[in-house]
Amino acid sequence: MTSAQHPPSPNDRIVRARRDLDKFLRDPDPNPERAEDVAGQLATLPLSEVIDILERSTPVRAALVLRMLPRARAILAFDALDAAHQSDLVGALSDDAVSDYFGAMEPDDRVSLLDELPAEIAQRLLHSLDERDKDTTSLVLGYEKNSIGRHMSPDVPMIRAGQTVGEALASLRAQNDHVETIYTVPVVTSDHRLVGVTSLRTLFTADEDVPVVDLMSEPISATTSAEDEETARRFLALDLLALPVVDDSGRLVGILSNDDAFDIVEDADDEDTARSGAAEPLRQPYLTTPVWRLVRSRVVWLAVLALSGLLTVTVLDTFEDALASAVVLSLFIPLLTGTGGNTGNQAATTITRALALGDVRRRDVFAVMWREARAGLLLGLLLGGTFSLLLGFFYGPQIGLILGLTLLIVCTLAATVGGAMPILAKAIGADPAVFSNPFITTFVDAAGLIIYFLIAKAVLGI
Amino acid sequence: MTSAQHPPSPNDRIVRARRDLDKFLRDPDPNPERAEDVAGQLATLPLSEVIDILERSTPVRAALVLRMLPRARAILAFDALDAAHQSDLVGALSDDAVSDYFGAMEPDDRVSLLDELPAEIAQRLLHSLDERDKDTTSLVLGYEKNSIGRHMSPDVPMIRAGQTVGEALASLRAQNDHVETIYTVPVVTSDHRLVGVTSLRTLFTADEDVPVVDLMSEPISATTSAEDEETARRFLALDLLALPVVDDSGRLVGILSNDDAFDIVEDADDEDTARSGAAEPLRQPYLTTPVWRLVRSRVVWLAVLALSGLLTVTVLDTFEDALASAVVLSLFIPLLTGTGGNTGNQAATTITRALALGDVRRRDVFAVMWREARAGLLLGLLLGGTFSLLLGFFYGPQIGLILGLTLLIVCTLAATVGGAMPILAKAIGADPAVFSNPFITTFVDAAGLIIYFLIAKAVLGI
Repeated sequence: MTSAQHPPSPNDRIVRARRDLDKFLRDPDPNPERAEDVAGQLATLPLSEVIDILERSTPVRAALVLRMLPRARAILAFDALDAAHQSDLVGALSDDAVSDYFGAMEPDDRVSLLDELPAEIAQRLLHSLDERDKDTTSLVLGYEKNSIGRHMSPDVPMIRAGQTVGEALASLRAQNDHVETIYTVPVVTSDHRLVGVTSLRTLFTADEDVPVVDLMSEPISATTSAEDEETARRFLALDLLALPVVDDSGRLVGILSNDDAFDIVEDADDEDTARSGAAEPLRQPYLTTPVWRLVRSRVVWLAVLALSGLLTVTVLDTFEDALASAVVLSLFIPLLTGTGGNTGNQAATTITRALALGDVRRRDVFAVMWREARAGLLLGLLLGGTFSLLLGFFYGPQIGLILGLTLLIVCTLAATVGGAMPILAKAIGADPAVFSNPFITTFVDAAGLIIYFLIAKAVLGI
Repeated sequence: MTSAQHPPSPNDRIVRARRDLDKFLRDPDPNPERAEDVAGQLATLPLSEVIDILERSTPVRAALVLRMLPRARAILAFDALDAAHQSDLVGALSDDAVSDYFGAMEPDDRVSLLDELPAEIAQRLLHSLDERDKDTTSLVLGYEKNSIGRHMSPDVPMIRAGQTVGEALASLRAQNDHVETIYTVPVVTSDHRLVGVTSLRTLFTADEDVPVVDLMSEPISATTSAEDEETARRFLALDLLALPVVDDSGRLVGILSNDDAFDIVEDADDEDTARSGAAEPLRQPYLTTPVWRLVRSRVVWLAVLALSGLLTVTVLDTFEDALASAVVLSLFIPLLTGTGGNTGNQAATTITRALALGDVRRRDVFAVMWREARAGLLLGLLLGGTFSLLLGFFYGPQIGLILGLTLLIVCTLAATVGGAMPILAKAIGADPAVFSNPFITTFVDAAGLIIYFLIAKAVLGI
């Protein structure tokens, strides 16, 4: 994205400004006179470039950049950062600046930041808010993590079903300063029960005398306790701007904007991606994450996978006699375990994504296993056929037969188990992405090796 | 999400309606009299449930459901489906219904569907549009794939910098029928050059006499040729509703809504997720994807991975003498290749995601390798230490030493290569998610085995 205000070759200017800023920031003893020049250049950069600079800087440098920005831009830029990154910055900024930025955030963004901060600092920040903001923020804090209540804004506009368009528009003007959005307009009864939804666009283009009830549609809403990821995905599929949120008795208590929903989905995708690679999500830009945090995000899964890999050692130990009498069998071990693991992971990745998108549910487990068994069998026929010919040519027909049969069975088994695992993981309340990967690799490696040696012993007669 | 209109236990009602519908749809010879009952039940379901039913049905059954819906709901439901799924449905629906749904879609959604259809049907559909819609759709079709132009709506509202708020509001009312949104309001000069952006909210709450120039802010915009994924991610980070799109000379030609941007990002995430699991994205709900398409989405990568796995066979063949004189060495092969592959994939997954999010760029390759080398070394020390003690206890100190040293080197190497690969892949124009996985597995497996046997030969003196 570029800022359309400064056309003559804005890219060169941006590159130069960023280079100057980089030099200034890396200077261990920066010249204070240069600071003004750099701040001047910074002021001409588009906001998205400024955010990009902040995301790639250490907390101390990012705090320096924020101090050089005019207040309004600094607030926008701070607001655009991830909560984990904001929390790192809090220590490097002055208390006044932090209170200032914090006060300008939406209640749900404040809660995300508070979740990342040590309790003591979180308490102090909460108390720096004015009464109204403190109340709305505390309200959101009261809902459970992973619920819609935790992400909504309690600053929701509302109009009455009995109003005319003219009255409704006047009421919206009066509410404007205190609400997150005025584009999606929930319609309520006198006791705040949600009965419909309309939009500023509809009201703004209608006659003033028309009753609001004639312009509202069926209210698509969520309850505060609804699970956040599933609700956010369904809501985003409808291409609506905002979703009214009601309590258990149907009273309007908040609104979820589509960018809040998008943040929920992106965080969930971040987590799924990291976990499918057997790591935990970093929750902040890579280059500003300390190395020890990278290690911490990976070491547990790596250790679990390696320890469960000991099962393969035990299996091979059992077949040590067969290995000793036909050393050639050991040559194909990585090929077999690799192919089995890949087939299982393909199925698991597909089903984990389908679960996240709501395309597959728990009750579909047998339908999924039946589809995966057929897909695995087809893949096994193709791979087993190819490799039995290829390896049969170099290592003799017996080896070709052993590998062809093993690949056929291992692919079918791996796809079936790989498809079922994420659903079973979800059924017992585990994260499908975390639970599937280690289990499938371990199971397929061990089962694959047992099948391999049983077939080899039968074919070779050892 | 639930519909707030029908509170008394809506879940039971939904479950019952879905069960009845399921039974009706699966009946090979359905009773036509039942159709009316089922349509009645369908009418009471929330729209999100209807979409869910469509996403889980075969094209023929989904077409039957669409026919039972009132026109307005059918249009909304069809619009909410993925383009690949819509294209499957086109064959099962009547031509009239297809033209009807197609005509009601946004230009960019129409283009996504046209991309999925055979050329002949696409041409026929395009010609079924009225002149105005045909023109805007053809305009979007003219931009390159993966450019912002391809996703924008040309139906953009605009007001003049010289207008007052009152004039601007009147102008927006007049444009209302022909524009995608009226909430984000681009401000242009007389020759359509973008000079600022304001919002309906700002205009609606301001005095009628205020000049528009006093209420507009720096225009954050994109050009039609900008790369879609990166632009969409940056735009979404700013929590804006819509992004004005300009041509190369700064003239306003369209607008990208945040739900269009969200669709771009979700499609890209879908692709990355599938490819990190060594498969191609399905682009339609899992349960309605034919098994042969599942196989097609996986077989190429599985075959590439398996064929590159032949490298491990060659490496082991080279060390067959060492294996024959110490069969115990073969017991640890899956453990070593597994751990190396996992370490490499952890790094590659993290960096692929960081590249997609724009947190890491090409010029950061050395910074990334240096961070990953240190992270890998730490992981290697932890794992190598643990396993040398553990396996040393069971298989003797020499084996412990060999495995500890090998894990230390393999982890460091795997993390470094795993971190560098996605960046190098991007530099040569390949998809980081596709290219990294097979290359890392193959390289780490082969290199790891060579290191293992060299250390083993030195320690055991064979």
